[in-house]
Amino acid sequence: MRTAAPVPTTAAPDLVLRCADLLEAVRARAPLVQCVTNTVVQNVTANVLLAVGASPAMVDVRTEAGPFARVADALLVNTGTPHEETRDAAVEAATAAVDAGTPWVLDPVAVGALPVRTALAHELLALRPTVLRGNASEVLALLDGAAGGRGTDATATTDDARAAARASAGRRVGAVAVSGPVDLVVAPDGTVVRVANGTDLLTRITGGGCALGAVVAAFASVTADPGDAAVAATVAYTVAAELAARDAGGPGTFQPLFLDRLASLTPEDLVERSRVSTEDGTGTADSTPAVPARSER
Amino acid sequence: MRTAAPVPTTAAPDLVLRCADLLEAVRARAPLVQCVTNTVVQNVTANVLLAVGASPAMVDVRTEAGPFARVADALLVNTGTPHEETRDAAVEAATAAVDAGTPWVLDPVAVGALPVRTALAHELLALRPTVLRGNASEVLALLDGAAGGRGTDATATTDDARAAARASAGRRVGAVAVSGPVDLVVAPDGTVVRVANGTDLLTRITGGGCALGAVVAAFASVTADPGDAAVAATVAYTVAAELAARDAGGPGTFQPLFLDRLASLTPEDLVERSRVSTEDGTGTADSTPAVPARSER
Amino acid sequence: MRTAAPVPTTAAPDLVLRCADLLEAVRARAPLVQCVTNTVVQNVTANVLLAVGASPAMVDVRTEAGPFARVADALLVNTGTPHEETRDAAVEAATAAVDAGTPWVLDPVAVGALPVRTALAHELLALRPTVLRGNASEVLALLDGAAGGRGTDATATTDDARAAARASAGRRVGAVAVSGPVDLVVAPDGTVVRVANGTDLLTRITGGGCALGAVVAAFASVTADPGDAAVAATVAYTVAAELAARDAGGPGTFQPLFLDRLASLTPEDLVERSRVSTEDGTGTADSTPAVPARSER
Repeated sequence: MRTAAPVPTTAAPDLVLRCADLLEAVRARAPLVQCVTNTVVQNVTANVLLAVGASPAMVDVRTEAGPFARVADALLVNTGTPHEETRDAAVEAATAAVDAGTPWVLDPVAVGALPVRTALAHELLALRPTVLRGNASEVLALLDGAAGGRGTDATATTDDARAAARASAGRRVGAVAVSGPVDLVVAPDGTVVRVANGTDLLTRITGGGCALGAVVAAFASVTADPGDAAVAATVAYTVAAELAARDAGGPGTFQPLFLDRLASLTPEDLVERSRVSTEDGTGTADSTPAVPARSER
Repeated sequence: MRTAAPVPTTAAPDLVLRCADLLEAVRARAPLVQCVTNTVVQNVTANVLLAVGASPAMVDVRTEAGPFARVADALLVNTGTPHEETRDAAVEAATAAVDAGTPWVLDPVAVGALPVRTALAHELLALRPTVLRGNASEVLALLDGAAGGRGTDATATTDDARAAARASAGRRVGAVAVSGPVDLVVAPDGTVVRVANGTDLLTRITGGGCALGAVVAAFASVTADPGDAAVAATVAYTVAAELAARDAGGPGTFQPLFLDRLASLTPEDLVERSRVSTEDGTGTADSTPAVPARSER
Repeated sequence: MRTAAPVPTTAAPDLVLRCADLLEAVRARAPLVQCVTNTVVQNVTANVLLAVGASPAMVDVRTEAGPFARVADALLVNTGTPHEETRDAAVEAATAAVDAGTPWVLDPVAVGALPVRTALAHELLALRPTVLRGNASEVLALLDGAAGGRGTDATATTDDARAAARASAGRRVGAVAVSGPVDLVVAPDGTVVRVANGTDLLTRITGGGCALGAVVAAFASVTADPGDAAVAATVAYTVAAELAARDAGGPGTFQPLFLDRLASLTPEDLVERSRVSTEDGTGTADSTPAVPARSER
């Protein structure tokens, strides 16, 4: 099903334990996660947040989005269906989040060739999101000015986006999370983490990536480390998806089962099932940190 | 699971029979229910209306919303995601509904601290909705100017909202329906009805309350009594939810099962399963009506 | 369940084989289908496209919609919830599609009495869509200026729309697809095809017709014959629905099962299960073609 990552890696048991702790923290605190996201996936995003233990709030209108981002525990901004009022709300919310110290996630859906969202995504990137999450084509298009895919087509691989992500993590953004068959997270200090959990079914439903962005935001509200937040959210999300896939008859029945599994997911599930590794050699957390991890937010 | 209401109440068998009759009437007439509602829950709202036997119409654009409200059998206005054109459509539709005698429900989602929707909800309240439906925080925020919750968080209890609801029912609005672990309905004559059916799963999916608002509108089209409409809709909705919860593995599988149960719900199910009570003492329907119930519409 | 069509018809085994080939072609090419559609059904439309093997892209904002329609493999324009920016995007996308030769489908939801969408639908019709898809009331309202139903209520039958469809197919539009208990497709050459597959459950969920419009667009990208595209899409969609209905407990569980069945549908399923017929006598493909079928796109 999944191909092994080409870079030598080692298992990361401590990181997995932190993931389990962060899941417990999300459940305990029920963070209020504001979403300025596309209309295609608003419903599934809200349901995924509820299932994971967070409290969704789709506050995406002008003059409400900014003040709300000051009181929310986290913010997701997703550039799909960027209608005029939604764009204004996105910038307003991200600006307020930065000012108030609210952690926020940028998901630059289908950025690259499409002019409106590409300009919006660059404007948002300049505000330095806590986490940038996308597929490899989107991350490359935003960080390197690559042409991007058509729509949400991901033609690049996560490893194609590795260098761009490492050059930007801890500088232009906090962490970078690149979704793919093996998910790749680059922490602000340059550590590269790979998460090999998941199921192809997540790519056969709409919102499989978008809703993960919201979950990353939820986790970013319970830790000051954006890399840990991105890894823990990815692990929780993909482990639940894996469990759901075992009982699914296809992409339709997968969706309700996935919500059930997210809702019943335990920290122990993460410890037992996560397949998380960090790169060996240069770029590991302890040897060559680009910036101190704890300054991130 | 559910705590008993603190006020002495008595069972209301006649009211339950009326609920069963109203369910039959909705099925027989298939009322056309216009919804000006938030984009997060449009899909589930339409599916819930179809399942209960009504015909949904999400007509929410300028210059269409008003004329349509004159021919629709009922109207729902929900203040979530109140984009500029949606706000115009909401006011246009409610104004036309009042003029044409179309019963309509106001659901003031997340009203209170958020400025755009709060102003909109007050403008709509001034048009005197047939039924006001919300959680306790929203009802208090709108009727009493309380601060409201964060998003759809309900921190107040239904009994907290009882006094405000009684002061407004039959005056500023027709009936008031307050959703919570035990739902509370105040009829225009001041009668307080409690419905103890339901499941926590309704709070763990998005749209659990919003879709109920649309069902109240459907029921308001088949009776001139807004209190009965609100009670019958609440009973039908929560009994179906209860039945679905028995077979659900979590909030994901609950949703399709809930639609199935709504679609197959019988008047007999309501008679057998509803847990409806009215308050004893002052404020009952026969002793101290605030206004004549039949003047409502 | 289904009543026989009143016009004498013959089975169409060759057409069924072409349907099976087109399903394989959609699976092989994974066409990128742009959707400018209503917010109620965006999610289910995207999931249906993914299930059938296409790649959805909900690009519906000004200045993105036009350029995208030039690179997309097909376009769907649906007139439900026609907010101002969406209307602009619809016209922009359809105009670009015509110019670039991108096949496109017009779904004139609830056209007739509602002024905004009726004007929009006529503007789009003047651009000559590759396929016009709607229920009988919508098709009659758009092509003949009939009053239309209330909302998506279909009060007319597919055979009521037959004459209007025949007068317009190959002239004002490519093909016409009229949804109903027995679906009716009129090819550009005037051939009338009936598809007797399906289930009542498709009318008891929201988006049952809207998502079919998107599937027609997907199939129109893999054949130059709009009639074949409409028939093949209808057959694939309704056969999958039929199979899902056998296991469904109601309209709720039907939906995930339908997506599963769409995803696992094989060309052999179509050959075995499709109930497709063409009219005898005048108007058949070989005797009185109104225009050459292959000039259509």
